[in-house]
Amino acid sequence: MSLDTETSSKPHERLAAVLQDDLAAVDRLIRERMASETAPRIPEVTAHLVNAGGKRVRPMLTLASARLCGYEGENHHRLAATVEFIHTATLLHDDVVDESRQRRGRPTANLLWDNKSSVLVGDYLFARSFKLMVETGSLRVLDILSDAAATIAEGEVLQLTAAANLSTTEDIYLKVVRGKTAALFAAASEVGGVIAGVEEAQVSALRTYGDALGIAFQMADDLLDYEGDVALTGKNLGDDFRERKLTLPVIKAVARSDPEERSFWKRTIEKGDQRDGDLAQAMDLIRRHGTLEDTRSEALAWSAQAKSALEVLPEHELRDLMADLADYVVARIS
Amino acid sequence: MSLDTETSSKPHERLAAVLQDDLAAVDRLIRERMASETAPRIPEVTAHLVNAGGKRVRPMLTLASARLCGYEGENHHRLAATVEFIHTATLLHDDVVDESRQRRGRPTANLLWDNKSSVLVGDYLFARSFKLMVETGSLRVLDILSDAAATIAEGEVLQLTAAANLSTTEDIYLKVVRGKTAALFAAASEVGGVIAGVEEAQVSALRTYGDALGIAFQMADDLLDYEGDVALTGKNLGDDFRERKLTLPVIKAVARSDPEERSFWKRTIEKGDQRDGDLAQAMDLIRRHGTLEDTRSEALAWSAQAKSALEVLPEHELRDLMADLADYVVARIS
Repeated sequence: MSLDTETSSKPHERLAAVLQDDLAAVDRLIRERMASETAPRIPEVTAHLVNAGGKRVRPMLTLASARLCGYEGENHHRLAATVEFIHTATLLHDDVVDESRQRRGRPTANLLWDNKSSVLVGDYLFARSFKLMVETGSLRVLDILSDAAATIAEGEVLQLTAAANLSTTEDIYLKVVRGKTAALFAAASEVGGVIAGVEEAQVSALRTYGDALGIAFQMADDLLDYEGDVALTGKNLGDDFRERKLTLPVIKAVARSDPEERSFWKRTIEKGDQRDGDLAQAMDLIRRHGTLEDTRSEALAWSAQAKSALEVLPEHELRDLMADLADYVVARIS
Repeated sequence: MSLDTETSSKPHERLAAVLQDDLAAVDRLIRERMASETAPRIPEVTAHLVNAGGKRVRPMLTLASARLCGYEGENHHRLAATVEFIHTATLLHDDVVDESRQRRGRPTANLLWDNKSSVLVGDYLFARSFKLMVETGSLRVLDILSDAAATIAEGEVLQLTAAANLSTTEDIYLKVVRGKTAALFAAASEVGGVIAGVEEAQVSALRTYGDALGIAFQMADDLLDYEGDVALTGKNLGDDFRERKLTLPVIKAVARSDPEERSFWKRTIEKGDQRDGDLAQAMDLIRRHGTLEDTRSEALAWSAQAKSALEVLPEHELRDLMADLADYVVARIS
């Protein structure tokens, strides 16, 4: 690989290159721990998802945080595997909840096997993830990750009840986003610092980094749903509108709407009565109130917060890559 | 209540009377911890199940074990609430997996709300249960209960793949039974001894007690499906046969079948092609091979094992009640 390619490659790819050995150890651990002597369905379902290869951002956050804090032991592998197990379990359950048919370009487990297997294998992975944490011997790590697991479930329940609900506030939106993405990003980063035993200000900075990174990422995603380039994002414009999701651009537009506009949102989002031309009108209202710009500037601010949090941490190649990652998640909207 | 009524009441009712104050503290803790500021759906769904009032055998096992081992702190309340949360979470997920419509005489949560809420609220309760365990400060307790949670999920996955599968062995049956009942009974009893800090032989005896109690209970239940009195059990005879479940009486009958009998089981259980008179013929085969008697004697042996395990524990009113409970679960088949 030429130097030129290396510097132009994506930060999560460069993180994966630097953390190559650690990631290989985590993969071995995952394969070892997802096994079940008695129920072969479990590794089948898990492997389907694990082998599909996500970007492994969450385990890398744990590995990078631990390494840049000078950690030399092996518990960061256990924690990175834990974080990936929790993530995989939530994906399995999400696909049941959302009745999804595709994940990472492949049919979902609930489609290939059944909802039952997805629910139960998810539960198994949750339980195994706690077992892995217990092996680190750190109650603090267990506390942080069980909190994250509760926040994830809470955020998803909130998303259920907030869907198609015009009274959804920005505060609720943020809680949903933390549940979807930021809570596990925050916990994954924080536990790396905890096992390295760095000072509290640094542990807290890692948590802030993960939280802000997750929020920036999700806001950018929600923005792109209304202005993205289909060729780049692979998503159709307006999917969230059609699915009646209250994301930030719409929440802000609803808050600024006059009575006529409000009845438009009421009909299309709350009642779900959508007709030809409604997406165009929704876009028009969103543009008129400048809510895409506001969403963009909030996402950029979260990204900036993620980067500045890193400043209290030791100078390190991995710290720089984590900062690059914070730039990268908003590069698509800058 | 007269003395006479008291001695004739059921052992779990007498346990509940003796543990009244502890149970009230556990109830308070459950109510406090199932709350979610942001997602009111969570306590709604949980309360629906908790208020329906199961027998609370699992939390009572923890409370009784801790008390009879002389425990004086407050962690037994946390652990009893943990055990009830894990149990409630598995019930929520089970009802989704089994597409159940009734639980404890009321419509199931998946019917009243939806499958999504049942999956996610179950996840929330799992996460909260780990948080409660962390508060006890005992990594050993976390290890025991995360193992139990994995065994539960593993047993249920195994049950999925074992259903309608004639190659199901008694060994697989036992693993399914441990997943359904015995693993949480065992862990609930064991952690009571662990927090009381009694010697290892006593901790192990408590675990053996819970495991054997759970197995005896489940075997009795499976037996009653083929010979129970509908008026007493509230279950229809032959439900397991109609649902093509491989329980012990059938597994043993299949193992002893001649080719003609085997093709009967193949047609009715494996292919699910059931006709009028098939249940009667199944009962006939079961009787012919004496598998109900064998199942009964195994259940009685497990119950006896549960009782004898208690002998290494201190003499105590609660120990006697636990022994009575072991008698009670097989009284229906004795």
